[in-house]
Amino acid sequence: MDFEIDPRVDASFARQGFMDLIGARLIHAKAGRCVMETAWSERLTQQHGYFHAGVSATLADNAAGYAAYTLMPEGASVLTVEFKLNLTNPARPGLLRADAQVIKPGRTLSVVRCTVSTLADGKETPCAEFLGTIMTLLQAPPPP
Amino acid sequence: MDFEIDPRVDASFARQGFMDLIGARLIHAKAGRCVMETAWSERLTQQHGYFHAGVSATLADNAAGYAAYTLMPEGASVLTVEFKLNLTNPARPGLLRADAQVIKPGRTLSVVRCTVSTLADGKETPCAEFLGTIMTLLQAPPPP
Amino acid sequence: MDFEIDPRVDASFARQGFMDLIGARLIHAKAGRCVMETAWSERLTQQHGYFHAGVSATLADNAAGYAAYTLMPEGASVLTVEFKLNLTNPARPGLLRADAQVIKPGRTLSVVRCTVSTLADGKETPCAEFLGTIMTLLQAPPPP
Amino acid sequence: MDFEIDPRVDASFARQGFMDLIGARLIHAKAGRCVMETAWSERLTQQHGYFHAGVSATLADNAAGYAAYTLMPEGASVLTVEFKLNLTNPARPGLLRADAQVIKPGRTLSVVRCTVSTLADGKETPCAEFLGTIMTLLQAPPPP
Repeated sequence: MDFEIDPRVDASFARQGFMDLIGARLIHAKAGRCVMETAWSERLTQQHGYFHAGVSATLADNAAGYAAYTLMPEGASVLTVEFKLNLTNPARPGLLRADAQVIKPGRTLSVVRCTVSTLADGKETPCAEFLGTIMTLLQAPPPP
Repeated sequence: MDFEIDPRVDASFARQGFMDLIGARLIHAKAGRCVMETAWSERLTQQHGYFHAGVSATLADNAAGYAAYTLMPEGASVLTVEFKLNLTNPARPGLLRADAQVIKPGRTLSVVRCTVSTLADGKETPCAEFLGTIMTLLQAPPPP
Repeated sequence: MDFEIDPRVDASFARQGFMDLIGARLIHAKAGRCVMETAWSERLTQQHGYFHAGVSATLADNAAGYAAYTLMPEGASVLTVEFKLNLTNPARPGLLRADAQVIKPGRTLSVVRCTVSTLADGKETPCAEFLGTIMTLLQAPPPP
Repeated sequence: MDFEIDPRVDASFARQGFMDLIGARLIHAKAGRCVMETAWSERLTQQHGYFHAGVSATLADNAAGYAAYTLMPEGASVLTVEFKLNLTNPARPGLLRADAQVIKPGRTLSVVRCTVSTLADGKETPCAEFLGTIMTLLQAPPPP
């Protein structure tokens, strides 16, 4: 796979304070697929030292939204309608990676699947499975 | 409502590095209900300046888990099996509050509902609706 | 509660062959709320004699869709985008009732919550909890 | 693919009155995968003549449960904890097929993905995407 990043995704990602806070990095965003990662640190943990489920949810939601965004027309904005996340394995320290793929693109709504995995000791282990709905907004929302 | 915090929830919450990172505060945790909050900052934003959906997801997941934890026997650990989150309104700057209530307690699995709201200018506006499944583990998971 | 049925819901319900097959009856549909019921029979069972989860899902989905439909403009059609269902208790023989309430109406998308319960021996027991997203279509879909 | 049916699934399926009512047929059930089908009829429709979403939900839930059941120990019973379903395309008249695959088997809980498709005029079109959680019960539930 040739990693490529849609410049619109890059610019949007850079405006998300929360991505900076959790140390997330955009790896790929093109043609209905988006990959992002963050490295384990004590600041991202739940009570037993694993990645917090909220970190997995955040990465998955963001990767899914941007996967859909790569297919949207110029000038559109992206909005998560809803998602469901199954936690499938403990998210062990290492690199946390979300890999999202649009499975049904649509003019208004797109359905996106995303798998979150941990990479440690050269081994990739899925830790969460996401299925969600992303909306195309034809205009940017007003500033808050 | 008299705010009270189950000491087990308090201790578990204090071990979560991610709660510290997002500035979350535990407000109430007792008898199947849990409330937590965090205040808006640039570090918690998505690309348009609203709270990131990942912050809402994190607060909701955590409040739901601890709501269920208040009903678990001594020595148990709490694990999120899965959840679904609908984003219902933009999460405007202000205080973000997750209020979770167990709707079906169970020996192994509990079903929890949680509403996330923003509080600004004296007004509370729901921004996300959560429905999830929490598991009682009779032993703590091994360290990662 | 005064039971009332929006005539558009009544007409749409009457065209659903599947409602006739499962013996469902529309009880109420107005102002963002919809209630429907079906009575237990051997034809609606899973392997242990309880109502099949598919029956609960069907009733919940339909009640949710029509709850949202009551708030839609003239000429609109209703479409389920997605839903999540938690099975909370075995659905014992008796009357199965789905009670749906729009919790966030929207021009394009509405979020609806629905509780499915069984009524037997004068007692109502929740058996499923639904959270879903319903879409307003401004035109009817083409015939299949 | 060699179609094979686990005899435990076959026996359980045969006890489900609802499968008979909707004309469902078990095609394959082995090693974490299950496929079932039903043919379109007026009795399975929603208001515009497509398959009712409840039929897709029923097939998906059942295929998912039995996919997990094929991996359970002797004497176990299968229970759906929860599922989420995205409707991705109109379910046109033809054959409706649910194809479920366990993506994370577990001693107590298994995570299952299922795609529902329609087959008509030699073409297969996905119409729904399912992600759910199935529980292993070590004993059969009591009769209702």
